[in-house]
Amino acid sequence: MGKNLTTRAEDYSKWYNELVVKADLAENSGVRGCMVIKPYGYAIWEKMQAELDRMFKETGHQNAYFPLFVPKSMFEAEEKNAEGFAKECAIVTHYRLKNDPDRPGKLMVDPNAKLEEELIVRPTSEAIIWSTYKGWVQSYRDLPLLINQWANVVRWEMRTRLFLRTAEFLWQEGHTAHATKTEAVEESEKMMHVYADFAENFMAIPVIKGIKTETERFAGAEETYCIEALMQDGKALQAGTSHFLGQNFAKAFDVKFATAEGKQEYVWGTSWGVSTRLMGALVMTHSDDQGLVLPPSLAPIQVVIVPIYKTEEQLAAITEAVTVLTVALRKLQIAVKYDNRTTQKPGFKFAEWELKGVPVRIAVGPKDLENGTFEVARRDTLTKEVVSKDGIETYINDLLAQIQKELFEKALQYRNTHVTEVNSFEEFKAVLDAKGGFVSAHWDGTAATEEKIKDLTKATIRCIPLDRIEEAGSCVFTGENSVGRVLFAKAY
Amino acid sequence: MGKNLTTRAEDYSKWYNELVVKADLAENSGVRGCMVIKPYGYAIWEKMQAELDRMFKETGHQNAYFPLFVPKSMFEAEEKNAEGFAKECAIVTHYRLKNDPDRPGKLMVDPNAKLEEELIVRPTSEAIIWSTYKGWVQSYRDLPLLINQWANVVRWEMRTRLFLRTAEFLWQEGHTAHATKTEAVEESEKMMHVYADFAENFMAIPVIKGIKTETERFAGAEETYCIEALMQDGKALQAGTSHFLGQNFAKAFDVKFATAEGKQEYVWGTSWGVSTRLMGALVMTHSDDQGLVLPPSLAPIQVVIVPIYKTEEQLAAITEAVTVLTVALRKLQIAVKYDNRTTQKPGFKFAEWELKGVPVRIAVGPKDLENGTFEVARRDTLTKEVVSKDGIETYINDLLAQIQKELFEKALQYRNTHVTEVNSFEEFKAVLDAKGGFVSAHWDGTAATEEKIKDLTKATIRCIPLDRIEEAGSCVFTGENSVGRVLFAKAY
Repeated sequence: MGKNLTTRAEDYSKWYNELVVKADLAENSGVRGCMVIKPYGYAIWEKMQAELDRMFKETGHQNAYFPLFVPKSMFEAEEKNAEGFAKECAIVTHYRLKNDPDRPGKLMVDPNAKLEEELIVRPTSEAIIWSTYKGWVQSYRDLPLLINQWANVVRWEMRTRLFLRTAEFLWQEGHTAHATKTEAVEESEKMMHVYADFAENFMAIPVIKGIKTETERFAGAEETYCIEALMQDGKALQAGTSHFLGQNFAKAFDVKFATAEGKQEYVWGTSWGVSTRLMGALVMTHSDDQGLVLPPSLAPIQVVIVPIYKTEEQLAAITEAVTVLTVALRKLQIAVKYDNRTTQKPGFKFAEWELKGVPVRIAVGPKDLENGTFEVARRDTLTKEVVSKDGIETYINDLLAQIQKELFEKALQYRNTHVTEVNSFEEFKAVLDAKGGFVSAHWDGTAATEEKIKDLTKATIRCIPLDRIEEAGSCVFTGENSVGRVLFAKAY
Repeated sequence: MGKNLTTRAEDYSKWYNELVVKADLAENSGVRGCMVIKPYGYAIWEKMQAELDRMFKETGHQNAYFPLFVPKSMFEAEEKNAEGFAKECAIVTHYRLKNDPDRPGKLMVDPNAKLEEELIVRPTSEAIIWSTYKGWVQSYRDLPLLINQWANVVRWEMRTRLFLRTAEFLWQEGHTAHATKTEAVEESEKMMHVYADFAENFMAIPVIKGIKTETERFAGAEETYCIEALMQDGKALQAGTSHFLGQNFAKAFDVKFATAEGKQEYVWGTSWGVSTRLMGALVMTHSDDQGLVLPPSLAPIQVVIVPIYKTEEQLAAITEAVTVLTVALRKLQIAVKYDNRTTQKPGFKFAEWELKGVPVRIAVGPKDLENGTFEVARRDTLTKEVVSKDGIETYINDLLAQIQKELFEKALQYRNTHVTEVNSFEEFKAVLDAKGGFVSAHWDGTAATEEKIKDLTKATIRCIPLDRIEEAGSCVFTGENSVGRVLFAKAY
């Protein structure tokens, strides 16, 4: 299998696009801006789903399902939210096709089947869900509602890229309702922490937790919490957001509850989501010029075994040894594949599994059988070792844990060396150009300055880090007072 | 909790509608024909999904994801399929809203954002998937493709009912591609058997396997295999279908492969699906006038424990005993809930969990503590027993298995007594009116007769049973020759 992969140094963007397709993660479809998620890519997404779903349930959430469509009048009820998504809505206007009299055998939209009210294909589900919550909440006893939905959403983006920005994408969206502001704020913070935990400990992607500026906030939210990751080209990627919605949607959809004292009050809300965009973050955090690098926790195949042989007899003897090994590995819940295809040479197989990011490759030939060894190769470091067959399953199990840990550490190391404090706008621009990454700078807190900096540098404020030190300073752009540094970066 | 459930005898249809809502399975939404699947209903659907997904993977299938939208020109490529779904398509024509100058704060469809080509919201995904397969298949080595998708689909039905017929529903759709006709036929038959196995052994719903007549066949298929269940009102419900597509979609989308001999041939296809409609089948097969009856395999809560007490001290002692019991039950993977709400009386709780179909209820009061017993009630038979606490976890585990088995047997018994052989059209009508169920009759094999019978009786041919006996006979309607009986029924 010739990889012919553009290198990251040559063209990072092209490298990404090629890799996603060549590693069988996804491809563009015949529908503008919509992708096909291929089985190998979908298997990775399923692992993310399973882990997130477990984490959501552990924190008391239940899944449900709400309609794909939102009638226009319902959609526009929360004005800021509606305005925020209005420019990228797919709109259903008709409900029937009919035979086209001018083109035998072909169809046309039936003009007599126009909907009385247009339906918006959900870009996000606050409207439809809060219109439902109205019927579910009467008293404080009905609260909190802690609900999550796994769904597809559509945002009619003009410039799309596989996983990173597609017209349709898959995601989960949590929507919760609470009796008090404190509880709702706690919920939105809790889910940001859940996302950070997931990104770091399951995807091996280090993230910075923070809050968004008003400009970058979710349309209709009072506060947006986020986790921000850093890609290998020095650009940031928003990996998950959690919104404190205040009483905005409760007011727009008239969702009130009777308190224990019998008073009528509006409900407090949150929403939070991560999407198939995480697949893009995964690719761009760990992979290299040889192809994908997958953390063991997300790898559909964790260990691939390739036999090296010349004769049928050798293959039979190897297969016997491999059978013992696979049984031992599967007992440890390790996903193993024995690649005994006779149609491909070992070199082809090595290249293919490197491209697909299988964390550990085991090769075994007649010499290994004689010596009672296996050759074990790590995908992340591209290093090899000869390991005795005795206790090798424990060795592999430990190695997978070690790879998971080291991938995170490597990404963390990169991220940490790419957060640069600057104290002037010249320095700001120089760092952004030369090195990229997060630029930590004082900012005067105005949207106007934020916008000017964006116009001049393409960098946006990714977040006000949760752990920032409150310190007096001067805005790098205007020199006005600042109470602490924020993180700027160019972003996906 | 007052149930106030209409009884089945009073009005079966009303009983169903009320039960689905009152048991918190689903409700109608603010979007015409679309339902909200509530957490309790969704938890049951998740159990179905998990088991089906396991069965699909075990039979070699992988999941993937294809776009929600199908461009019109792609949709109409396979003419029969397009024609079959044309009358119930939701159609996206625009991609942007704008401020409505006549209604401040409100939005309107932007007439300048009309799509060049309309997009059909998938009613089924053969078109988009086969247009993708064209790029995936070059040689016989690329076959078979064994792919499944979990997705939402939209069919603009005019008369909708929760789960049974909704404008949007959730389903899985398998789409496979094969090198030979034999292999494709085997695949479609295999998946029918998988569905039957799932329905009978997991949902405790007996089904009849068969093939559809040409009239009832999936649009674009050469053969449709189905499983047919019988509801308590004597109406049939199609619970799953598996289609042999021949080379129809391969030809429409030009999907060819090079054989081992280097010849170019069209690929053979299948597709197969089950949907949230199964939730309707579940409700209507097992439930009674007290509410839902859930087979243990599908129950989100398998055992509920209700404390009976007057004093706080009693509650504390009961809770202690319950804790021991729940730990023991959970060790056996049994889903237990301890309903220790202080806001509701035991009678209310009993009624609520009966309504929600929890298979086993355990009640425990001070007397039980003294005697070292628990009161165990079965939801399906509404019978109670006092059981010693020693080894009760094994007793419960066995009881759950027994309930699962007996629910199937009860449904099978009902079904078997509702398949009636008739030999004249008078008898046909009489049986259909008096008793309903499947009417087994000779039919002359013509669509014309099928339609006339439908017009006169509302009964359709549900299937030609796979296990029917080939026997010469005369059509009950025309007296023409017949080679075997088929099953008629009124159907959902």
